Amino acid sequence: MNHPPVVAVVGATGAVGVEFLRCLDERNFPMSDLRLYASSRSAGKQMTFRGRVLTVRELNEQSFKGVDLALFSAGGSISKKYGPIAVQSGTVVVDNSSAFRMNPEVPLIVPEINPDQIHRHKGLIANPNCSTIIAIVPLWPLHKINRIIRLVVSTYQAASGAGAAAMQELLDATKAALEGRDYPPTVLPHPYAFNVFSHNAAIDPQTGYNEEEMKMVKETHKIFNDPEIRVSATCVRVPVLRAHCEALNVEFMSPADSTWVRDILSHAPGVKVVDQREKNYFPMPRDASGQGDILVGRIRNDLSDPSGRSIAMFVAGDQLLKGAALNAVQIAELLVAEN
Amino acid sequence: MNHPPVVAVVGATGAVGVEFLRCLDERNFPMSDLRLYASSRSAGKQMTFRGRVLTVRELNEQSFKGVDLALFSAGGSISKKYGPIAVQSGTVVVDNSSAFRMNPEVPLIVPEINPDQIHRHKGLIANPNCSTIIAIVPLWPLHKINRIIRLVVSTYQAASGAGAAAMQELLDATKAALEGRDYPPTVLPHPYAFNVFSHNAAIDPQTGYNEEEMKMVKETHKIFNDPEIRVSATCVRVPVLRAHCEALNVEFMSPADSTWVRDILSHAPGVKVVDQREKNYFPMPRDASGQGDILVGRIRNDLSDPSGRSIAMFVAGDQLLKGAALNAVQIAELLVAEN
Repeated sequence: MNHPPVVAVVGATGAVGVEFLRCLDERNFPMSDLRLYASSRSAGKQMTFRGRVLTVRELNEQSFKGVDLALFSAGGSISKKYGPIAVQSGTVVVDNSSAFRMNPEVPLIVPEINPDQIHRHKGLIANPNCSTIIAIVPLWPLHKINRIIRLVVSTYQAASGAGAAAMQELLDATKAALEGRDYPPTVLPHPYAFNVFSHNAAIDPQTGYNEEEMKMVKETHKIFNDPEIRVSATCVRVPVLRAHCEALNVEFMSPADSTWVRDILSHAPGVKVVDQREKNYFPMPRDASGQGDILVGRIRNDLSDPSGRSIAMFVAGDQLLKGAALNAVQIAELLVAEN
Repeated sequence: MNHPPVVAVVGATGAVGVEFLRCLDERNFPMSDLRLYASSRSAGKQMTFRGRVLTVRELNEQSFKGVDLALFSAGGSISKKYGPIAVQSGTVVVDNSSAFRMNPEVPLIVPEINPDQIHRHKGLIANPNCSTIIAIVPLWPLHKINRIIRLVVSTYQAASGAGAAAMQELLDATKAALEGRDYPPTVLPHPYAFNVFSHNAAIDPQTGYNEEEMKMVKETHKIFNDPEIRVSATCVRVPVLRAHCEALNVEFMSPADSTWVRDILSHAPGVKVVDQREKNYFPMPRDASGQGDILVGRIRNDLSDPSGRSIAMFVAGDQLLKGAALNAVQIAELLVAEN
């Protein structure tokens, strides 16, 4: 890899693409050049980066020549097609899609948790699912000390996870509802204004769990390198723009109490404790939006576990930042540091 | 009690009050007269019932003379003050506030669950908390067969639980957000537009659980007459107008599977199974609003319990109807039937 590297962003005009540029800029990511790629529909668009106007180009098989590092966020089928082409060209790919996450050859990395996995990459590194990252960043420092054996999670997921078009649909549908107009959904399967619905991922007809829920199970196992953690997730969309919340009920191997959890998390990287009982002030998507930390609060001893080994908590994190672009740029920073 | 009874509604102009009138009308509740009471602020307002225009009167200590049955939904302090006065006047009170729910002398009734409790009333009958009702109507027919020993619940609660003013605040705040205007909250403690926040009930500084969550624990124990069910709730407000959703993880005494649950709930009173995996169609507040049934879906064997005794599910119910007015009117129907 050249120093500083030539960087490509694939899916530059999407909701995550825009945040890639913001994170690369804000974190002073070292680059000798930046190239922006998207579909033919977005080719020709102009985006500004560090005062320069860059033109978005249509992605093709030649796009990766001379590119050291590519950040992909253009959906699974683009990653499956162009990821291997990029690797063939000598580019290291950090992929935000689910295409390669469960491939045993591909490291799946959250830099606060398993940065050492960077060393075993063969050109492809996967960025985990947003709901997984937001849950496990605060769980890892606890798990390292007192092993987690069961996790029950219910999510409150924002529109952004379904892309910029879903965010616009939430705004348009809500405006229509306030004006008394009908708004048939086109991006998401159900009316979004003032409504809540089960996550739109495909459902396993046998188990009834959807793919988003199963990502939380499998990715947690892989990232924690602990396939025995028992996870049940219920993934739900709420009418929020860009930050996810999650209610977590966590069972540990040994007794755990809320004071210990609050103490550990107060010093944990990537985590901010927001747990003001006296002010009724806890993690909210409004506060999580635009910041890199995962907010954690409502930390309490789970009343329903008399063995004293369970903790309930509530987290919020920006789906586009730590849930996607920021985590990928942090992985890219590990790559640069490795060279 | 006269036949048909003289009925009073206390808090007639509130979000629940309006639904009392709708339920009394739609269910052809037998009445010889209907009297509407509210605070001095709302006195003089006119409301229509079965084609008659009724004037709302200011509640005072004389209001219950000649009243056989009073439905209260005007907050705990009004219930505490006027409930006993009404009983003294010979009125039977069905109270929607939390004032008397945990009083052992006062029956706490969900007609699908413990209608027999009606016989032990001494003038006061309590209507449970909305989140409790919405969870336990579908749990009861299961619990009767296979005892529930643990319940972990995360709620997605609508504005209506905080009254008509909170519903208006959600609309106004959302309109302001869409127009790029600030909207400092006045009814709820946090900005509501496109936001999610921990329930605004008071928090126990020791345990960290809030009163809404503890109602779910204590009321479930009382209504099921089973103080050993271990319950942990996380109560959260979402930007939805009038129907609550809840994600439930339920542990039974003996093995349970989703087919059994679906079968039992398909024939359960007050419940409608909405569980179309192939269409990704499950309970939503949009569908629950305006109907009396609790919608139940996402019924699946809880992956995180290898003993096969746990079920995950997702429910939605109209907070103002089965969560409040409808349940109270059903209690009133039990009273009329008893006479």
